[in-house]
Amino acid sequence: MNINENFLKIESSYLFSNIAKKVKAYTKANPDKEIIRLGIGDVTRPLAPACIEAMHKAVDEMADEKTFRGYPPEYGYDFLLNAINENDYKARGIELDNSEIFVSDGAKSDTGNIGDIFSLDNKVAICDPVYPVYVDTNVMSGRSGEKNAEGKWSNIYYMPCTAENNFLPLIPTQHVDIIYLCFPNNPTGMPIKKEELKKWVDYANREGAVILYDAAYEAFITEDDVPHSIYEIEGAKTCAIEFKSFSKTAGFTGVRCGYTVVPHDLKFGGTELNGMWARRQATKFNGVSYITQRAAEAVYSDEGKKQIQEILAYYRKNAKIIYNGLRDCGFTVYGAVDSPYVWLKTPDNMKSWDFFDLLLEKLQVVGTPGEGFGPAGEGYFRLTAFGTTENTEKAVARIKNYFAK
Amino acid sequence: MNINENFLKIESSYLFSNIAKKVKAYTKANPDKEIIRLGIGDVTRPLAPACIEAMHKAVDEMADEKTFRGYPPEYGYDFLLNAINENDYKARGIELDNSEIFVSDGAKSDTGNIGDIFSLDNKVAICDPVYPVYVDTNVMSGRSGEKNAEGKWSNIYYMPCTAENNFLPLIPTQHVDIIYLCFPNNPTGMPIKKEELKKWVDYANREGAVILYDAAYEAFITEDDVPHSIYEIEGAKTCAIEFKSFSKTAGFTGVRCGYTVVPHDLKFGGTELNGMWARRQATKFNGVSYITQRAAEAVYSDEGKKQIQEILAYYRKNAKIIYNGLRDCGFTVYGAVDSPYVWLKTPDNMKSWDFFDLLLEKLQVVGTPGEGFGPAGEGYFRLTAFGTTENTEKAVARIKNYFAK
Repeated sequence: MNINENFLKIESSYLFSNIAKKVKAYTKANPDKEIIRLGIGDVTRPLAPACIEAMHKAVDEMADEKTFRGYPPEYGYDFLLNAINENDYKARGIELDNSEIFVSDGAKSDTGNIGDIFSLDNKVAICDPVYPVYVDTNVMSGRSGEKNAEGKWSNIYYMPCTAENNFLPLIPTQHVDIIYLCFPNNPTGMPIKKEELKKWVDYANREGAVILYDAAYEAFITEDDVPHSIYEIEGAKTCAIEFKSFSKTAGFTGVRCGYTVVPHDLKFGGTELNGMWARRQATKFNGVSYITQRAAEAVYSDEGKKQIQEILAYYRKNAKIIYNGLRDCGFTVYGAVDSPYVWLKTPDNMKSWDFFDLLLEKLQVVGTPGEGFGPAGEGYFRLTAFGTTENTEKAVARIKNYFAK
Repeated sequence: MNINENFLKIESSYLFSNIAKKVKAYTKANPDKEIIRLGIGDVTRPLAPACIEAMHKAVDEMADEKTFRGYPPEYGYDFLLNAINENDYKARGIELDNSEIFVSDGAKSDTGNIGDIFSLDNKVAICDPVYPVYVDTNVMSGRSGEKNAEGKWSNIYYMPCTAENNFLPLIPTQHVDIIYLCFPNNPTGMPIKKEELKKWVDYANREGAVILYDAAYEAFITEDDVPHSIYEIEGAKTCAIEFKSFSKTAGFTGVRCGYTVVPHDLKFGGTELNGMWARRQATKFNGVSYITQRAAEAVYSDEGKKQIQEILAYYRKNAKIIYNGLRDCGFTVYGAVDSPYVWLKTPDNMKSWDFFDLLLEKLQVVGTPGEGFGPAGEGYFRLTAFGTTENTEKAVARIKNYFAK
């Protein structure tokens, strides 16, 4: 009787759970202090009225035997698949069949579970810093090897993304099999341009590698030559799986919906991956709530689109407030243009967890220490635009006030 | 670059997906025929008014920034954990801490994903016939070995459940590590009594094995000495994980909510499993929709409880209609007392897929062939009570009419 011992290799708690615990302990000891949370990438604006209306209608349908819906189709209702296909792909000149789109309860589940379809001997390449789920799930499944003194896993190929390379990973100098890319990037907030992404697609096609492309933040893109989908790049259908989420696009963090695209043209080691993901999902997942899927569909209605843009504009304004405010008081800042994230250099090369403690204890502002995203994140810090504008302004004022001293 | 080759061992499609395809093909060829579906265990009654009301309220909260909710707690909101703990456990004399309960999007996901925390060299015991997810997920992860000519996997310990043993598996005559038990059983509809389940708890504690106890159908129990939770059995907290679902209890197949209990006292190979499941869920899952959790909470309100019982009574009546109707025209039938399932012997030892085809083509009634649940299911067939009473009566009349000839 053995547990999966790979679990013992990782810290027992997930990064954001650790931060939550620290904040909870501080709040308990200092109940009078007003904390401003710009740490976890969680939204604060209410859902778009179109989504609210769609959910009320769907709830009413569930109350009537004539319109009641039981088990959803495993990969999503046609009404939602059609809306996704039409708006996120056809409108951008990308041809997909609905059978290439898999609706799920979110990009975290899918980027975590996608490892099920790959063998354990694949060489995995990840950016550093990176969204912890990519690394942790590979550690848990046994694909990582052991952790060395620098905090790096022996079997993982690290691609540092720092100010030195403008936060763009370099094409690997060796063969790798599975490449995790996230653009606009979490945590750095930096985008990738089409011509840069083309180099990755070419590498992957040449090497027979697969790119796991997390586009959860694409709705924040403002620049023209930044792709909203990897399939805007020629050749991507034979080498890339794309993950998208309604969490940041439409404030669905508490509603739970996303989708994953696995093109039929994508083969890995000779096998079509679409059928494998279909089998994985049909066996270990039972579809998304009907009510949630109706809410997601409403994101693509005329009203919904307009309302979503207003919400995104609100967060973009917050990102600018943070970016400009910190820049003006001497911080080196990145991101914020195509992203809700501001990535900053800690002052005087302060360790990122020390900076976390300082912001929490002196200013009652919660951010995320760069080191939590990987060794190359040390010396950086992430702030998010997902708070209220009032709180964002207050937090920036506190930071300016403190560091201007 | 290698895929997980274990995926190639299983049929490319899940049992119920295959049935859906067969039915779709038949419907296309015979558009004028009226099909009655008593195959998949999917409910048809609308949701309880208490759940509808709770969801409308929760949707409205999501529309207001003062009450908006973002990321849910990874393991469930306290309001739902409290309701589950109070009603499903404390009320039955079982003491659990809320940290032992993990809310999820359903028992299918959890029984599928639980394998993540165990190593691949554990010996798995399953009942035969069995809910396909237990077997398929072990095949996909590489715990099954190879399939032999009889359709059995070489590394899996099979426990036949047939009329000969009154559908109760025998305690293994060798050491096994992981035991899947589901009672009231899917597909046979048969319950286990407390004194019988005690034998399993004693075996597991003696062998250091873990019981994965699927109690998704417990709401259908009518007999007194049949346990609603495995933790009613002394010693179960040191050897059992329990899976429960709102799908059948409260008609949530299209809403998606369930929960899993991993007691802190449960160790496997010396390691506490609670922390491992907590880490798995925090890393690869992002919690359940706030709206869904409010609906689940409402199941435990005074109104909700009453309404749920009315719905359960409706399905119980259907189960009796099927059971009595088929018995009266000469079928040998099982289940239906503590379960929404009727399990029957096919007439004249007909192969179960042949019987499926006969019912579909001659009577336009859809059931599930026993063979789809495992080799020992051959010669049996499952009908479910989840249709409307009108359709159930019609289906039974068609069967009676045909087999009385």
